[in-house]
Amino acid sequence: MADKITPRSVDYSQWYIDIVLNAKLADYSPVKGCMVIRPRGFAIWERLRDELDRRFKETGHQNAYFPMFIPMSFLEKEAEHVEGFSPELAVVTHAGGEELDEPLVVRPTSETIIWSKYRDWIQSWRDLPLLYNQWANVVRWEKRTRLFLRTTEFLWQEGHTAHETQEEAEAETATMLEVYRRFAEEYLCLPVIAGRKSDAEKFAGAVATYSIEAMMQDKKALQAGTSHFLGQNFAKAFDVQFQTRDGQLDHVWATSWGASTRLVGAIIMTHSDDKGLVLPPSLAQEEVVVIPIFKNDNKATVLEYANRVVQSLKASGRRVAFDTDDSNTPGWKFAEWEMRGVPLRVEAGPKDAANGTVVMVRRDTGEKSFVSIDDIAAVAATTLATMQKDLLEKARAFRDANTRDVVSYTDLLEFYGKEKKAKPQAAIDGESHEGTAEATGGYARGLWCGSRECEAKLKADLKVTIRNMPSDQQDHVEGVCCLCGAPARHRAIFARSY
Amino acid sequence: MADKITPRSVDYSQWYIDIVLNAKLADYSPVKGCMVIRPRGFAIWERLRDELDRRFKETGHQNAYFPMFIPMSFLEKEAEHVEGFSPELAVVTHAGGEELDEPLVVRPTSETIIWSKYRDWIQSWRDLPLLYNQWANVVRWEKRTRLFLRTTEFLWQEGHTAHETQEEAEAETATMLEVYRRFAEEYLCLPVIAGRKSDAEKFAGAVATYSIEAMMQDKKALQAGTSHFLGQNFAKAFDVQFQTRDGQLDHVWATSWGASTRLVGAIIMTHSDDKGLVLPPSLAQEEVVVIPIFKNDNKATVLEYANRVVQSLKASGRRVAFDTDDSNTPGWKFAEWEMRGVPLRVEAGPKDAANGTVVMVRRDTGEKSFVSIDDIAAVAATTLATMQKDLLEKARAFRDANTRDVVSYTDLLEFYGKEKKAKPQAAIDGESHEGTAEATGGYARGLWCGSRECEAKLKADLKVTIRNMPSDQQDHVEGVCCLCGAPARHRAIFARSY
Repeated sequence: MADKITPRSVDYSQWYIDIVLNAKLADYSPVKGCMVIRPRGFAIWERLRDELDRRFKETGHQNAYFPMFIPMSFLEKEAEHVEGFSPELAVVTHAGGEELDEPLVVRPTSETIIWSKYRDWIQSWRDLPLLYNQWANVVRWEKRTRLFLRTTEFLWQEGHTAHETQEEAEAETATMLEVYRRFAEEYLCLPVIAGRKSDAEKFAGAVATYSIEAMMQDKKALQAGTSHFLGQNFAKAFDVQFQTRDGQLDHVWATSWGASTRLVGAIIMTHSDDKGLVLPPSLAQEEVVVIPIFKNDNKATVLEYANRVVQSLKASGRRVAFDTDDSNTPGWKFAEWEMRGVPLRVEAGPKDAANGTVVMVRRDTGEKSFVSIDDIAAVAATTLATMQKDLLEKARAFRDANTRDVVSYTDLLEFYGKEKKAKPQAAIDGESHEGTAEATGGYARGLWCGSRECEAKLKADLKVTIRNMPSDQQDHVEGVCCLCGAPARHRAIFARSY
Repeated sequence: MADKITPRSVDYSQWYIDIVLNAKLADYSPVKGCMVIRPRGFAIWERLRDELDRRFKETGHQNAYFPMFIPMSFLEKEAEHVEGFSPELAVVTHAGGEELDEPLVVRPTSETIIWSKYRDWIQSWRDLPLLYNQWANVVRWEKRTRLFLRTTEFLWQEGHTAHETQEEAEAETATMLEVYRRFAEEYLCLPVIAGRKSDAEKFAGAVATYSIEAMMQDKKALQAGTSHFLGQNFAKAFDVQFQTRDGQLDHVWATSWGASTRLVGAIIMTHSDDKGLVLPPSLAQEEVVVIPIFKNDNKATVLEYANRVVQSLKASGRRVAFDTDDSNTPGWKFAEWEMRGVPLRVEAGPKDAANGTVVMVRRDTGEKSFVSIDDIAAVAATTLATMQKDLLEKARAFRDANTRDVVSYTDLLEFYGKEKKAKPQAAIDGESHEGTAEATGGYARGLWCGSRECEAKLKADLKVTIRNMPSDQQDHVEGVCCLCGAPARHRAIFARSY
């Protein structure tokens, strides 16, 4: 199996696709740009969805469901919103055998349909806040697509909240950004930078957009979640007013925030290696695979012993696969389960059965240990917990090693100019022979004047964008813009991105 | 709140809509025929979805996700399938600012797109069975819609399985029907009849369709889940062949099965009363509401005591609401929580605080009891379990009381002919003054020859259809068709239906 996967050093994009296809996470669709999420890929999505949902509920949110069809006229009510989304819309013009009076858009996002209902539900400050979320499919007609990372239809959640005051809505925006940040780090092992997007990169219709940004192994950034402060824009567009505590009428304040199946792509790209998928234990369908190693004359003994190991792991709450198929060799199975990203492999052969031990191998480091059958449940539990921490720290170390402070355009040119497009980058675990001296990009941390001109120049010259302005680095900004030398207003993270 | 609900005896349809709207379960959508599922309604769906999903996984199924857009040509590959669905399709003709070369249908069901992929994934008997399910939104452009029961877009799950042999696929069809039957009875408290549909009522593209049928309080039947044996129809349409165990090539055998948000409508219609929603405890967002009853001079004491009750219930794993809002009277709150369908109400006033007791009231029967605070957790648990059983038995008793054996067309005419359209029926708990002597329909159980003519006549004359042929009542069918007098082949259940 492993030989089906193109090494990262040869072709990073192909390596990613090889993993997605060979680990049976997803497949292409007969409809251009759409994808099929196969069971092993969907299991990852299910686990992350359930955990994120739990965190939403813990912070007071409820789920609802709004129609996926939106009248075209609704989108047109918010000028920036329709301008941003209209190139990407899929439009239903016929239904039930007839042409529709008004075309219906398949939701690219649901602000407009939701705010058209909030108008019915909100009369007074007593009706506020509304803290709703929905899990749904959305459609954005993209020209260039890539499995999980960018597909015309994708699955996501979109939170839509309504508040009495600006302060409350801004606090909600910040709260949800922090929910995403912690979720990404604790559950997905993705170290992320949380911060505000530039105006050029904000959501169409938002006053301010905040994001979490992760770094992939090719040193490109990937936006992994966004939280928008919408001000009163949608309340004004849909005329949603409420009676305030002091008896006045005011427009409602809004936020929205979302994360999508793109996260599955980010997880694959961040942790995997040339043998295949590497998954944080939190996300793995099976945390442990037990592989019995037997010949005909000891099959019964070994299987019985291996089954004891399986039962002991299951009794301790572990998710376990037991690979008893004898049409494949143990070596083939090792490679196969490595490709699938199962965090721990436990091998049990005749000697192990005699000694009361097993061999345990970590997927991420390849580290082998001999464990007594009496300790297997406890050792598996601590090893998985360690692995969960190690994957985050490994990704963080990689990101930090590929982050550089820049003070001038020369620095930026040097940092991004030498990128070799055909041969992407030094891989995280050093298989590549390119050293860090041969800098090929990553995160550049620098000061920015805030002008659209500087941002546009950077994008045109180097295909580099401002990922965000990290929330925790905006105090005492002093100095000059690394692009134009004018007085700086923000500390920013620059990078190429997905 | 309760006075907003039209009594069943006055207008059953309006009673249903009043409950859905006033209990904030769902709302109308700006797009005709679609619905908005509000948080209290979505919470019911979430609970039933999670339980059904658990039962699917327990029986070996995995979740996947397929694109919602299907090329029109795919539907056309199975003749009966396209004929059945084409009047109800919503069609995307434009996307990304351009007219599409081939129109895309928004899935009304996913057999065609799924079998187009199964072709890629199935080569040998070793690849079988595939036991996949997906949770998704689907669209069927309906002329007459009703919240939850029939909407143009709805949420559902659709299982799609692929098998080596006819026997295996038939066994799967039966297994899933039984999963639905047990789920409906154990979790939703809906007594159902499981059986085979007539050919006229089967799924477009199926060899045989099986259903579970529930009875609503207006004595109409509601199809609550279906399981289809698809034979090799879709495998042939999409050319999905596999190498058999003996080295031959054969087409794959298939099933599909589904249940939808319509179930939420069935639950509301089966259990609720003129005060509002009644929910099985299994489905209730809050199982218990605790309402403190205080005046200004004893507020602190009562609240502290009521909070102890809440904590004790929560500690025992109960889902609890604590209504401390003092802008409404206790009486208003009682009515409000009754309308919302919370199974148990616990009242705690100053006397209760002094005596160490509470008053507990069951939503379904109105039964009141005095419970010591020390016993509240245990009593709540047993009362909820009892209520779960009682709701099923009450619905079963109602159904049985409204089921009649018929041997002739005269019997059918008598049973269905007298229906009063304006004043629907004797309500389950006897508020109506119409007795059972004034029979207005229900289930008729009779013999059927199997001819389409008899079935069509019944539908034309009385708007009655064959709901299904109960699986457990097909042995030793002897006698004559109750419609035409020809020799009978099946025992059938006749009813008007949703």
